[in-house]
Amino acid sequence: MDYQELIEEVYNEVMSANPRGKVADYIPELARVDGDKFGIALVDLEGNIFGAGDFEEPFSIQSISKVYTLTMVAGIFKNKLWSRVNVEPSGDPFNSIAQLEFEKGIPRNPFINAGALVITDALTSKFDDPIAEISKFINELTGKECTEINREVMDSELRHSERNTALGYFLKAYGNFENKVEEVVKTYVAHCAMEMSCVDLARSFSFLANDGYSIYAKREIVPESFARRINSLMLTCGFYDEAGEFAFRVGLPGKSGVGGGVASVMPHKFSIAVWSPELNEKGNSIKSIMALELLTDKLKFSLF
Amino acid sequence: MDYQELIEEVYNEVMSANPRGKVADYIPELARVDGDKFGIALVDLEGNIFGAGDFEEPFSIQSISKVYTLTMVAGIFKNKLWSRVNVEPSGDPFNSIAQLEFEKGIPRNPFINAGALVITDALTSKFDDPIAEISKFINELTGKECTEINREVMDSELRHSERNTALGYFLKAYGNFENKVEEVVKTYVAHCAMEMSCVDLARSFSFLANDGYSIYAKREIVPESFARRINSLMLTCGFYDEAGEFAFRVGLPGKSGVGGGVASVMPHKFSIAVWSPELNEKGNSIKSIMALELLTDKLKFSLF
Amino acid sequence: MDYQELIEEVYNEVMSANPRGKVADYIPELARVDGDKFGIALVDLEGNIFGAGDFEEPFSIQSISKVYTLTMVAGIFKNKLWSRVNVEPSGDPFNSIAQLEFEKGIPRNPFINAGALVITDALTSKFDDPIAEISKFINELTGKECTEINREVMDSELRHSERNTALGYFLKAYGNFENKVEEVVKTYVAHCAMEMSCVDLARSFSFLANDGYSIYAKREIVPESFARRINSLMLTCGFYDEAGEFAFRVGLPGKSGVGGGVASVMPHKFSIAVWSPELNEKGNSIKSIMALELLTDKLKFSLF
Amino acid sequence: MDYQELIEEVYNEVMSANPRGKVADYIPELARVDGDKFGIALVDLEGNIFGAGDFEEPFSIQSISKVYTLTMVAGIFKNKLWSRVNVEPSGDPFNSIAQLEFEKGIPRNPFINAGALVITDALTSKFDDPIAEISKFINELTGKECTEINREVMDSELRHSERNTALGYFLKAYGNFENKVEEVVKTYVAHCAMEMSCVDLARSFSFLANDGYSIYAKREIVPESFARRINSLMLTCGFYDEAGEFAFRVGLPGKSGVGGGVASVMPHKFSIAVWSPELNEKGNSIKSIMALELLTDKLKFSLF
Repeated sequence: MDYQELIEEVYNEVMSANPRGKVADYIPELARVDGDKFGIALVDLEGNIFGAGDFEEPFSIQSISKVYTLTMVAGIFKNKLWSRVNVEPSGDPFNSIAQLEFEKGIPRNPFINAGALVITDALTSKFDDPIAEISKFINELTGKECTEINREVMDSELRHSERNTALGYFLKAYGNFENKVEEVVKTYVAHCAMEMSCVDLARSFSFLANDGYSIYAKREIVPESFARRINSLMLTCGFYDEAGEFAFRVGLPGKSGVGGGVASVMPHKFSIAVWSPELNEKGNSIKSIMALELLTDKLKFSLF
Repeated sequence: MDYQELIEEVYNEVMSANPRGKVADYIPELARVDGDKFGIALVDLEGNIFGAGDFEEPFSIQSISKVYTLTMVAGIFKNKLWSRVNVEPSGDPFNSIAQLEFEKGIPRNPFINAGALVITDALTSKFDDPIAEISKFINELTGKECTEINREVMDSELRHSERNTALGYFLKAYGNFENKVEEVVKTYVAHCAMEMSCVDLARSFSFLANDGYSIYAKREIVPESFARRINSLMLTCGFYDEAGEFAFRVGLPGKSGVGGGVASVMPHKFSIAVWSPELNEKGNSIKSIMALELLTDKLKFSLF
Repeated sequence: MDYQELIEEVYNEVMSANPRGKVADYIPELARVDGDKFGIALVDLEGNIFGAGDFEEPFSIQSISKVYTLTMVAGIFKNKLWSRVNVEPSGDPFNSIAQLEFEKGIPRNPFINAGALVITDALTSKFDDPIAEISKFINELTGKECTEINREVMDSELRHSERNTALGYFLKAYGNFENKVEEVVKTYVAHCAMEMSCVDLARSFSFLANDGYSIYAKREIVPESFARRINSLMLTCGFYDEAGEFAFRVGLPGKSGVGGGVASVMPHKFSIAVWSPELNEKGNSIKSIMALELLTDKLKFSLF
Repeated sequence: MDYQELIEEVYNEVMSANPRGKVADYIPELARVDGDKFGIALVDLEGNIFGAGDFEEPFSIQSISKVYTLTMVAGIFKNKLWSRVNVEPSGDPFNSIAQLEFEKGIPRNPFINAGALVITDALTSKFDDPIAEISKFINELTGKECTEINREVMDSELRHSERNTALGYFLKAYGNFENKVEEVVKTYVAHCAMEMSCVDLARSFSFLANDGYSIYAKREIVPESFARRINSLMLTCGFYDEAGEFAFRVGLPGKSGVGGGVASVMPHKFSIAVWSPELNEKGNSIKSIMALELLTDKLKFSLF
């Protein structure tokens, strides 16, 4: 399989179809991004890199960062984690507070905001400087210094973080939050405001295609069973209210962010990241999803 | 009508029936109160005072304080207030956050916690030292220095205020909150932690029986129409999830608090406050409600 | 007090203000009604009748009929009724099924559809021909033959009764429904499709202003305490999602219907019915509510 | 790979661990089933059959039947289907009516009851005798006469079908239901009351492991893309509120029923059915899930 040829084909087909969506505009810093950007990077298990378009340009990874924090926590807390956050898909919006009330403070899964906040809270209990540790961890996974926090995005998100702060206090009311809410929200916002390129995202996700072993860190990041857990969570919960649709159309575990990025893996084959800022109405990158769908079609790959 | 004889009769009948409930125990400071306490004070429109039992002993007024803050805000903001808080009964628990989500950040009424927080937020926008102003206002209504904040109750409530803080941030996320959430919650907790006796409560509520004019303050506190608005809100929303039951059994506008107090008015006749710390399962004082029911029975008064 | 002069004044003021709304159009038979109709009838405790405008013209009473069925059931089942239906205001729409699920099949009150269906179900258990009994009962309350079912309205409502049928089956799933759902819904739709004039509505509601005694039936319809219960339920729950607003603006217990009618009582004084088909956005007659507000203003009456 | 050896190993390990749950008892006919029953049948793509335990004994397939009706409808309505039913996981119970209200009558997916009723409704629109067609279809998939409706189970379910009937009427209220509700519910209950053995279930699911082509029917049942759609739906929604857990522990698309059966496929390898009546608290067969988990462990298979 010539992966370079493959992703170029995919790149060209998407560019020629040119489906359009809408750049996230809930904060001005994201709204300013050029909607025409589009990049693909694929990394195989030996670390060979294949890229097309704007695959080396950093962008705001947003919710993709939740995969890193979940992985860190998993390594630390093992199975105790699942008493604080569930592993089932949510039928409600990613930032719903009503569901949290019905479920007595246990978030449905680690990728809705409430669940991700619980994860970041657990990291805050463990580390003196959690954001430094998260950066270090991502850099280790990527095999190089790659993360940079966009301060403007972070500050702007902080100024719009009331809903996440409410979720934090609500979790605290149910006894499912250990640290100062504002501190945890700040860390959460900081890791969402990190910028990475497609190629670095793909490198860093490589261990999830590789049963938990990272060729960059040269160590087992998580046991094989936990890598499977993360992948199954990405498949069932990784795309907001479009997980079922993505599972069908693409059939790969993946995680999207409102910055327009999607990081995904084909287990035992490769990791891949795609970026294009224009989103569909469910909040997922319209070009990125089309690219991944074309890719699995061309690979004749099917999970199912 | 000999009001003194009347309330003594009521007092004796309640004491002899002696219905028992459960003292609020969500914070230790409230749990410590003597469950046997029971007092009644009635104040007529000329200011004559009638009392029975522990009617001069101060207790934690809790949610009864929401009537004072609503009144203050009403005087300041007039009808603009109703764009920020609705006037309809809520079918959900007083501290529900789910309903607030369904209703896009507009609380159902000023007596559920979310609504009371909006009110306290409005006061915070207006005054440099809102808690001092609230005290001053209550003292004016009562015609003497009567309010004291129980610091232990306040501190303990503050340590358990996550849910109210969550409500505050959630309101802020919907643009219905102007000040720092923690500051407003602190003021809110402070006015709930005020202690007053039955007789002072009854004096302070007198203006609501008197078309808005206070004989103690010697001025119109609110226009007559606003006094009616507050009374109708107390009737339809003043007793958590037991407003309909109270409207039927007692038929007077009133407001209860988890400290076991109930302040109520018979418009154009008198104001009355009853206190007994043991609560029924809906959170209302079991002896206080029985006393008010007996009283309206004996008065052959019926709203309906 | 010259009631005739009073209601003519009210009538003229409303006609000159001429507030406009929207005739109910969920079935064509109601949509066809002339939106300009407007009538007021007041009946005092001696049976003197005062009328203005279209007060003798029959119209579709719709949800006002729920007061009659509740009264009948009350006479039969006494306090056992309250295990099947609650007495508290609902914060949800009148035909919400979600709330019924949260509350495990016990409707919040007898005036939301689920509660009214439980009431009609109880009547169906009691009577072989419930709709004949309901007619007979209303006629007895009115002191003459006055009810007629509009067959076209009934048939049309039946063809749109899926939601009520769903509520019935849902109640049955919770064990709170005894008879065949379709049969009960048919009876329910039939009593809602009755037509009565303002004057006959006012006569029939007279017992609720008179502590339960009907001067037309010449008997106690319900004990005084039950008349109070019905009045308090009308005050807290009688106007869909506008009960708090009506309690404030009018301050009388009353029940509205989507046909544009409102039947109301001033306890110990009179009963009154107003009709005008154009509704506000909450589903209550815009002219009828204005008329009742003007009336209590002019009477200087205030519940509060 | 010696499949016979494999499933015998699995069978023995489960029998020796012997995890216990609770037989479904919402109707007496299901409660009477022997909780000790346990069978496994695996069918490879050539039609070779491997079995252990009670793999030839018929049991009540219940919700597994929803896969057959979805498949039939898919063949008929193609992509028009997805305007009537969504494809996303539900965070609510399988028979929730509240979610249906929030989503305006569009069920979240075809495997919750509301969604399955829409599917059965579509079949009722198409066929004069839908239940005969469903039987015929299953027999064709299985390559032999295998379905029998247990009349006692069906009649008992019919007597307890109020909630499903309510869902049907509720769907009708939203315009998402074409036929008589009672008729559709009867067909729905009938197909749930079918009895099949593990081996016949495994044969009938074979086309889903085979890109839509059935070796028994000797034809393409659905296009390859639709087989993928069904498999992805089973993975994300096939196990009530335990889909995420099953995706992780087993990692195969599958569908469970309250009769204790689970039918599942490993795409391009085999189909498999397991049966044991005792359920865990989420309503899934405790031995069946353990068996499938052991099987994928031993196969070193991992979707992820």
